[in-house]
Amino acid sequence: MESIEKLIGNLNRLPGIGIKTAQRLAYHIITMPEETVFELADSIADARRRIRFCPVCGNYTEDELCEICSDPKRTQDVLCVVKDARDVIFMERMREFHGRYHVLGGVLSPMDGIGPDRIRIAELIDRVQNEKISEVILATNPDVEGEATASYIAKQLKPLGVRVTRIAHGIPIGGNLEYIDEITLFKAIENRREM
Amino acid sequence: MESIEKLIGNLNRLPGIGIKTAQRLAYHIITMPEETVFELADSIADARRRIRFCPVCGNYTEDELCEICSDPKRTQDVLCVVKDARDVIFMERMREFHGRYHVLGGVLSPMDGIGPDRIRIAELIDRVQNEKISEVILATNPDVEGEATASYIAKQLKPLGVRVTRIAHGIPIGGNLEYIDEITLFKAIENRREM
Repeated sequence: MESIEKLIGNLNRLPGIGIKTAQRLAYHIITMPEETVFELADSIADARRRIRFCPVCGNYTEDELCEICSDPKRTQDVLCVVKDARDVIFMERMREFHGRYHVLGGVLSPMDGIGPDRIRIAELIDRVQNEKISEVILATNPDVEGEATASYIAKQLKPLGVRVTRIAHGIPIGGNLEYIDEITLFKAIENRREM
Repeated sequence: MESIEKLIGNLNRLPGIGIKTAQRLAYHIITMPEETVFELADSIADARRRIRFCPVCGNYTEDELCEICSDPKRTQDVLCVVKDARDVIFMERMREFHGRYHVLGGVLSPMDGIGPDRIRIAELIDRVQNEKISEVILATNPDVEGEATASYIAKQLKPLGVRVTRIAHGIPIGGNLEYIDEITLFKAIENRREM
């Protein structure tokens, strides 16, 4: 059955969905009420269609500016620098950071040919110079590339007279922001150190 | 972001997809190339739209008759009786059964009010009487309801003079056809016993 095979193949391409899971999901989907299935399909296409990147911070948004950049209650002069837009969600879950974000869209990785011009470092420097930023918290992952990126950015920003801090190593080395609980993440922000 | 929340909710409704997995998938989907996402969405709706049940055996099909019923190379006089259409796929993976199927669309379950008239037993009796069937292999799951259903069907079919067999108890008791490897399933067919 061609349509099922195609569906299994497409599901199997998603991260963490092996062939067995893809088959199980596909055979479940075809037994679901038709309207539920069409709503699932529509919500997939719709989310992709409507999501874009905030031109200020690089976060996901459905509107012109993202929810955080357009919120006047956020502390305007503190920026938290993260690797990608999903990290904003992990930080926000903590509910203890009230500043704004700057999404790099990647980290420096000489092995993969990703230099400073391939991620949003120039945009960060622009923001620090033009948005009266008093502190930049570097919250890239505590792995080799994340540390190297943080060091590089710190070196670029310090001459501008802004306070540059790094989230504390409460986070396990080699870890990933996605899998860290809110309390550890809160500690990591609390114990941030000067760079 | 409303569209993302909606997508996460819909993914979370799928079996085996918890909230964390739904979030991970949703945030992955919005970073995938647009055409890949639309193809995924289309294949979900399309599979549901095109799949129906074979009027002869009750298996899934996209055409008038299913692939197995319309295949003249299948042994015509042996029927394998399974609980639902997904079981046909698990049996076919074994590649050692060359007869045709009869999908019950459930098993007897007095607790849930599912009696003989709620599953396709009358249709099975019709087929045995009209399609020159020499053997019916009962391949319902080896759990309480599957065994009770097999016993009930055996009692109905034996007066018709057809050979009625049950797949062997090579399959672990309480198990489910979905999670059994091909070799065990092959042994279970090989060691089928008279009922």
